[in-house]
Amino acid sequence: MSTEEKDHSSTEGIQNALFIIKIGGNIIDNPGALETFLADFSKIQAAKILIHGGGKIATKIGAQLGIESKYVDGRRITDDETIDLVTMVYGGLANKKIVAQLQALGTNAIGLTGADANIIPAKKRPVKTIDYGWVGDIETTGIQYSTVHFFLQNGITPVFAPLTHDGNGHILNTNADTIASSLAVALSALFNVRLIYCFEKKGVLEDVDNDASVIRKLDRTYYQQLKEEKKLFEGILPKIDNAFAAIDAGVAQVLIGDARDLIKNTTNDNEGTLIY
Amino acid sequence: MSTEEKDHSSTEGIQNALFIIKIGGNIIDNPGALETFLADFSKIQAAKILIHGGGKIATKIGAQLGIESKYVDGRRITDDETIDLVTMVYGGLANKKIVAQLQALGTNAIGLTGADANIIPAKKRPVKTIDYGWVGDIETTGIQYSTVHFFLQNGITPVFAPLTHDGNGHILNTNADTIASSLAVALSALFNVRLIYCFEKKGVLEDVDNDASVIRKLDRTYYQQLKEEKKLFEGILPKIDNAFAAIDAGVAQVLIGDARDLIKNTTNDNEGTLIY
Repeated sequence: MSTEEKDHSSTEGIQNALFIIKIGGNIIDNPGALETFLADFSKIQAAKILIHGGGKIATKIGAQLGIESKYVDGRRITDDETIDLVTMVYGGLANKKIVAQLQALGTNAIGLTGADANIIPAKKRPVKTIDYGWVGDIETTGIQYSTVHFFLQNGITPVFAPLTHDGNGHILNTNADTIASSLAVALSALFNVRLIYCFEKKGVLEDVDNDASVIRKLDRTYYQQLKEEKKLFEGILPKIDNAFAAIDAGVAQVLIGDARDLIKNTTNDNEGTLIY
Repeated sequence: MSTEEKDHSSTEGIQNALFIIKIGGNIIDNPGALETFLADFSKIQAAKILIHGGGKIATKIGAQLGIESKYVDGRRITDDETIDLVTMVYGGLANKKIVAQLQALGTNAIGLTGADANIIPAKKRPVKTIDYGWVGDIETTGIQYSTVHFFLQNGITPVFAPLTHDGNGHILNTNADTIASSLAVALSALFNVRLIYCFEKKGVLEDVDNDASVIRKLDRTYYQQLKEEKKLFEGILPKIDNAFAAIDAGVAQVLIGDARDLIKNTTNDNEGTLIY
């Protein structure tokens, strides 16, 4: 890693740093992991936003309520009873429990969906070959980032459930990764954003069979080179492409890493993969 | 009703009017009534806050999940599984559906519990003869009314579920009437508040058997007189006493009336009972 690359990836000392952090099922479904994560999250002194995915609890409660997961051509469908289920479980149970836990840790959290204060307007996904049901595609230009900015300026930390709304009275199920990147792009107008995706590995691996082979810094040139050398695991390529798309849209840096490395991953001495 | 009394009860033309409106099960459990109410609520031009009770949906979903309502000595108990249930149903399903519907009606609503932005801190009710479980008594002096003020100043309408938190990571089940009056008292520092309780009658009746005998204006002197004449239904006395307690604590007016009269009840030409 050259000095020049290090300079490009530096956030320390930068004014207006904002960390937008997404956690998924591997944290949400594990009370111990969630507790550890929230304690670390609370230690971040800079402005921060949390986006949580759904986890398996919705499927479990859905099964108890007799609501089965529906699929068409292998794609998950959000029908009437499923959107009520995820509104309850993601927007209520998961979101408010996280908020209460963060409050206890001294982080003044506010739990939100995209419907709240119209922060994330969306459109029901158009029906082409599949009707996904109550699934939302974010209207990125409509994101009310000034409301989020107010919260951050006043020491209030937004916690988003993976839900948006259509402006016609319906809540929409929306991918948490996409909510995170859309917020990151919108807030890049005001902040130097590092978008952090917590996932099950330490980072992007140069050798998929070696967990110690984490690529610490990744720019386009190096990415191109690794792809040509066919060193990267196929499944990770869309994640990296999405990361570069976010960077093209104004996000300073994207980091892919393990939730247990959160604190280090908010510094330049990162453990995960910093994409810039 | 004397002219002097009319003057005392006037809100029209007063700067900084704020309507704090509480609805209960008779609205929440009836989609048609809720739709009508929300349409009327959206038409109120002044600053406004909505507090919704729980309704029967929690009991219904609880039954499907095998969670029974628990009572000790006739008092409802909020145990571990019940607090999760009401967090889901009140804080998620009911709250976010109302928010999405209000957004569709052009009201920029934000759904909140007392845990969000620490707006309504509470304490778990102390165990004396009964352990009520996860039930909260509001710490009224801790209410973060400046955050609510920001929302109102920016055209954002808070919608509260009947939940608070204890600051130790737990959501607490909290009476919606009490949330409404506590917010009304706290916000009276900044606004001329009319606190409106929507209930199943047109208002307080002078003759309990005659629905047309609504008392339109009620001050302490008249209340005392009615009590001495034993004209009031016993069950309504605590509601009126609570109303006067709110007024003693700074709330300008309390109105008890039918949700269907909401628009008129935000004027001086009220249909319900205006207590002042």
